[in-house]
Amino acid sequence: MTDGKARLTAGADYWSTHPVPGHGPVRFADGPHGLRVQDDDNPDHLGIGRSAPATCFPPAVTLASSWDVDLVREVGAALGREARTHGVHVVLGPGLNIKRSPLCGRNFEYYSEDPLLSGLLAGAMVEGLQSQGVGACVKHFAANNQETDRMRVSADIDARPLREIYLRGFEIAIREANPWCVMSSYNRINGTTASENSWLLTDVLREEWGFDGVVVSDWGAVRDPVAALQAGLDLKMPGQENGPRVHDGDVDEQVLDRTLERLTLLARRTRAEKAAANPEEHHELTRRTAAESAVLLKNDTGLLPLSPSRRVAIIGELARTPRYQGAGSSRVNPTTVVSALDAAGRRLPGHAFAPGYRIDGEPDAALLEEATRVAAEADIAVLFLGLPDSHEAEGADRTHIDLPADQLALIDAIAQVNQRIVVALSNGATVTTAPWRDQVTAIVEFWLTGQAGGDSTLDVLLGEVTPSGKLTETIPLRLEDTPAFLDFPGENGHVRYSEGIHVGYRYYDTRKIDVDFPFGHGLSYTEFRYDDLAVTVHDLADPVAMTVSSELANTGDRTGAEVIQVYIGDRTGLVVTPEQELRAFTKVWLAPGEARRVSIPVRREHLEHYVPGTGWAFPGGPVEVRVGSSSRDIRLSTLVTLPGHPVEKQLTAWSTLGEWSDHPRLGTALWELLEERGGARGRMGDLLSDEAGRRAVLGSPLKGLLEFPGIPLDDADVEALLAKHCT
Amino acid sequence: MTDGKARLTAGADYWSTHPVPGHGPVRFADGPHGLRVQDDDNPDHLGIGRSAPATCFPPAVTLASSWDVDLVREVGAALGREARTHGVHVVLGPGLNIKRSPLCGRNFEYYSEDPLLSGLLAGAMVEGLQSQGVGACVKHFAANNQETDRMRVSADIDARPLREIYLRGFEIAIREANPWCVMSSYNRINGTTASENSWLLTDVLREEWGFDGVVVSDWGAVRDPVAALQAGLDLKMPGQENGPRVHDGDVDEQVLDRTLERLTLLARRTRAEKAAANPEEHHELTRRTAAESAVLLKNDTGLLPLSPSRRVAIIGELARTPRYQGAGSSRVNPTTVVSALDAAGRRLPGHAFAPGYRIDGEPDAALLEEATRVAAEADIAVLFLGLPDSHEAEGADRTHIDLPADQLALIDAIAQVNQRIVVALSNGATVTTAPWRDQVTAIVEFWLTGQAGGDSTLDVLLGEVTPSGKLTETIPLRLEDTPAFLDFPGENGHVRYSEGIHVGYRYYDTRKIDVDFPFGHGLSYTEFRYDDLAVTVHDLADPVAMTVSSELANTGDRTGAEVIQVYIGDRTGLVVTPEQELRAFTKVWLAPGEARRVSIPVRREHLEHYVPGTGWAFPGGPVEVRVGSSSRDIRLSTLVTLPGHPVEKQLTAWSTLGEWSDHPRLGTALWELLEERGGARGRMGDLLSDEAGRRAVLGSPLKGLLEFPGIPLDDADVEALLAKHCT
Repeated sequence: MTDGKARLTAGADYWSTHPVPGHGPVRFADGPHGLRVQDDDNPDHLGIGRSAPATCFPPAVTLASSWDVDLVREVGAALGREARTHGVHVVLGPGLNIKRSPLCGRNFEYYSEDPLLSGLLAGAMVEGLQSQGVGACVKHFAANNQETDRMRVSADIDARPLREIYLRGFEIAIREANPWCVMSSYNRINGTTASENSWLLTDVLREEWGFDGVVVSDWGAVRDPVAALQAGLDLKMPGQENGPRVHDGDVDEQVLDRTLERLTLLARRTRAEKAAANPEEHHELTRRTAAESAVLLKNDTGLLPLSPSRRVAIIGELARTPRYQGAGSSRVNPTTVVSALDAAGRRLPGHAFAPGYRIDGEPDAALLEEATRVAAEADIAVLFLGLPDSHEAEGADRTHIDLPADQLALIDAIAQVNQRIVVALSNGATVTTAPWRDQVTAIVEFWLTGQAGGDSTLDVLLGEVTPSGKLTETIPLRLEDTPAFLDFPGENGHVRYSEGIHVGYRYYDTRKIDVDFPFGHGLSYTEFRYDDLAVTVHDLADPVAMTVSSELANTGDRTGAEVIQVYIGDRTGLVVTPEQELRAFTKVWLAPGEARRVSIPVRREHLEHYVPGTGWAFPGGPVEVRVGSSSRDIRLSTLVTLPGHPVEKQLTAWSTLGEWSDHPRLGTALWELLEERGGARGRMGDLLSDEAGRRAVLGSPLKGLLEFPGIPLDDADVEALLAKHCT
Repeated sequence: MTDGKARLTAGADYWSTHPVPGHGPVRFADGPHGLRVQDDDNPDHLGIGRSAPATCFPPAVTLASSWDVDLVREVGAALGREARTHGVHVVLGPGLNIKRSPLCGRNFEYYSEDPLLSGLLAGAMVEGLQSQGVGACVKHFAANNQETDRMRVSADIDARPLREIYLRGFEIAIREANPWCVMSSYNRINGTTASENSWLLTDVLREEWGFDGVVVSDWGAVRDPVAALQAGLDLKMPGQENGPRVHDGDVDEQVLDRTLERLTLLARRTRAEKAAANPEEHHELTRRTAAESAVLLKNDTGLLPLSPSRRVAIIGELARTPRYQGAGSSRVNPTTVVSALDAAGRRLPGHAFAPGYRIDGEPDAALLEEATRVAAEADIAVLFLGLPDSHEAEGADRTHIDLPADQLALIDAIAQVNQRIVVALSNGATVTTAPWRDQVTAIVEFWLTGQAGGDSTLDVLLGEVTPSGKLTETIPLRLEDTPAFLDFPGENGHVRYSEGIHVGYRYYDTRKIDVDFPFGHGLSYTEFRYDDLAVTVHDLADPVAMTVSSELANTGDRTGAEVIQVYIGDRTGLVVTPEQELRAFTKVWLAPGEARRVSIPVRREHLEHYVPGTGWAFPGGPVEVRVGSSSRDIRLSTLVTLPGHPVEKQLTAWSTLGEWSDHPRLGTALWELLEERGGARGRMGDLLSDEAGRRAVLGSPLKGLLEFPGIPLDDADVEALLAKHCT
């Protein structure tokens, strides 16, 4: 059985593995928001529209805005059922890279700028998929946060942000949901290709996190298959006739055996038998999902929901030619598509329509004029705006965060003739509304809705669904304000992640920068009142550090849902921390007039920070607990002191005088010895008696101070102190 | 002569070297803005006030604000003469670290946030000193941009900012002025101690820049003297009885001989014989220097200069107890000190005085009340405000950029009773005026004036000198706006220079952030008009890339000086560049009504950027030339196209399809071959026909694309193309 083991470490063809003994081949398919299953006999495995029809669910950006882990799990299960109908064993998703910049062309496939939210939502997706016996493949591991030069660029990231931001979501999803596969990304991390990175694929992923599944390369991500295998990759995809490959003998047999074991485990885990799925049920699920995920950004004068008795003008080509999914490898061939105009034809009799602009962005004065005329005659103009495919896609990043110029011109023109404008947005990555926000009355961000989007949109606009989506990423005022503005997407083969841990709201809040709409923002057609914050601090042995609870009341006149968000401002001083960080959340449905006490556990591990050389730590101390409806709509807050595990620093001769002084035993010993010798002299004495000087001296390493006259100690004294007390 | 060579590599005592054969010992002294010469017999070599009296010139922050290289050279020569009177051979200065953050406690010893300005001014200081036969010792080499943990912290800086920002000033000063010594700094750079960093001290300093002098360690900066010597350090200071030392045999004799040669050259270069200096002349020079360096930040309604006929209230303890120099090793024991109150006693009869606050910052309601009463009775209140010693000093960094709270309260109180307020500031690092700017009529930033500051201040306030200083660093509105806000001063032994090349105005301008006062700002009592910009582009062989000229007219009624600043916006696309960068400047004096055509050469080397792996390069192409009175008061601008040396990239199989396509020969060959094979197929063909898709495909490495079906080429084709055309 030695012969041919190496063969198993690469695919048999574009989508399948070679079979391991006792099992059939494992078949993969693209599609975190719908199956893209392709005909094996089709020589073009990437042809769009040539894949089998499947339900096109809303992509990750939309799903995430629901902040509803149960809904995400439900969608995952539906995807799993569709996979089973096609004989697919592993779905290549979910993608959970952090939205470092709004410019990333693939942001529509990712969940959030926040790792906790990304990790919990991705974990729910994994659970849903795998509940059907279909493997998830979390991707793209790791730090694949841009499309520009994605196959070569080195993401240069310091240890702390790498751990706390870019790996954290993966860690959470893997620890919580145990996906059967992880996909290694195209890019390099601090100079080493992700697919050949043993620190990443072995030390962190397997040894620290306990991942027991298969690491599959992104398609075409492996340069040196032997190095990749040795680093911890199991499967190079796709299968390729030519090109580099591994032969038996190139690597230790142990390595091959280990890989074979993992591939066998994967084959055992996935279910081979086909199962049936109901396309109509899944269409209804996409409709419900997209409606629940819509984010009501603005709703002045309560213009929404629309009263059906008003004369409504529907303006915008996107109402007729909807953009309901992203472009690239994730593209699904939908079973059906419902545009907003289709839905309005059924549900909003008497509406008028004008396309207003061309989908290709070519200016068209006649369309603009017609739209203006149509809008002028209506009570309310609903503008369907957003980003056409040409603006965002896998493989390329955007260069600005504005709507297309012709759409901006349309807003200007309509605003001249109608004071009641609703903007319904369809886009995969954020667009700023700052240039036109004040010209319109209401804005709903629908993101990319999936195939039933026309009805989802109408559900929200007409009030059949009360919007409850919240932003999972900040909408900035200007591109210049974004954390990565100065170095995205890098140059010369490198991109420095200069903002460090301060990604997204962590940056805006810490630098106190105004934003267009903050992280966590999303209005409702009803109102919620928060009262009576209580925090129960748990024992250090409890994995839950504290339970945060408050009264939540629906004080409006519609049933609706609120996402209660718990932000923590760490004031323990262990490391530099952002102003606040999301550490827990929950979504609560309430009928009009209903009130409920809601308790939210905050887990101890979610309070930890990563200290290079030490690891994850929470030393205990004061934290600010903030409970709110968004990151900038904090309703209740309090300061509590939590227990923790102090991080003790080992003193050395190069520890500062201040560090020595703070040490419980050596501090006293050092100062007693100094005292004995008559105290600090001359300049050192002067400095220690002055505020700024004292800071300077306390901040200097003891060993450095000994080079100057004034501290009556020598190296031998320091060694003696260390020897005496550090035993 | 082998025996004892190693001994020469460390000092003989605190300030002196062991003599090299044929010469006496070389004696160092602190003091880039005045000599701090200490008694050899005094066991405390750092005692303040125990050094010999010397002229206290204005420190670097002040001097730099003159933007006057001739004045800096003149001060340098005066310092050199004073060194000669004390038998000092090398003065430990100038310091030219970049002001990365306004919080750095030692900013008062440095010139600017801009490397060109820092380098040229430091070079002038070196020339002045060395014209007297006294060596300069440029410091602190390198990247010593903070005081916090300065003896241990690693400045983690990417190659480009390290070269373009942090080393650039040193490179300019060394190439222009050839200082005889360089002082290696305490900190580490990308993990390696500066004093033991052979890349820094040998590869860059000596081999690239041609430095032929002595590298002296900062006092106490060497940990491993053998490693330091091997890395290129020549002299470990101070001399120390105990502690690690080098013995003959620890290093190659070649290394010792090389060091001995350098020490001998230093001894030969410096003049041993004492010379006389005239303290009165030097006092007058400090008076003139500080007056020329004052920056008039604001002067509404032309309140300044003061009319002597007005009743003036002088408010503020700093008028009586001036802060005229910084705290730390640079502290000079002045020959005399003139406070503003001393000067006003002579020159502003009839003024009233109230201290208003205590110098130690303790709130004092009685002083506040008295000052308010005194101000209420005056026509004009001149408030002397600033930072006491306890707020900024060597060895410690600040934590905010505000004036002390009691001084802010004073402004509030005075503004209630007097509408004509002049604020005269004394501080070594920037303070924001944003919280109180609108409450006062005029603001003059005097920085730290040196010992004659009282008269310098009155010279400006009374109009005997027309202010002509300009900011060499941006004054930000808020600390949160500063480039290094998120990571200064670092943690866990590291500080990431996350803003990269975008330091100071490079950051504010590129991110379009409002500031309190911009880089290069400074008003005058007269007015200047700019007309008729002309740019002459020079031949590629000429070290001057272009000559920028304009008419400058003094349209006011006083003699005054203007600093004409030339900023370049590089639009060549070689690398990511800031919005604009200072590339040349000159200071011009004009009588009232006088006009002159001013020509400013822009040197080719000053247009270059550093490309890791390639080196310094300017590829030629469009640049925006902006001429102005400050970085945000651009008076004239134009776009010119300059010749340059294109940077040619070597194609490989991992070059992107776009890079291949752009290649003059291989691009055509590749596309011809593709054409021959029938062109891109299926998905690849689809992508290439779509805008976003085309960007994605062109951005992918050729070798990566070959893993997917659709491009009818294989590895062998690519190798053949490369072999055929790259020979």
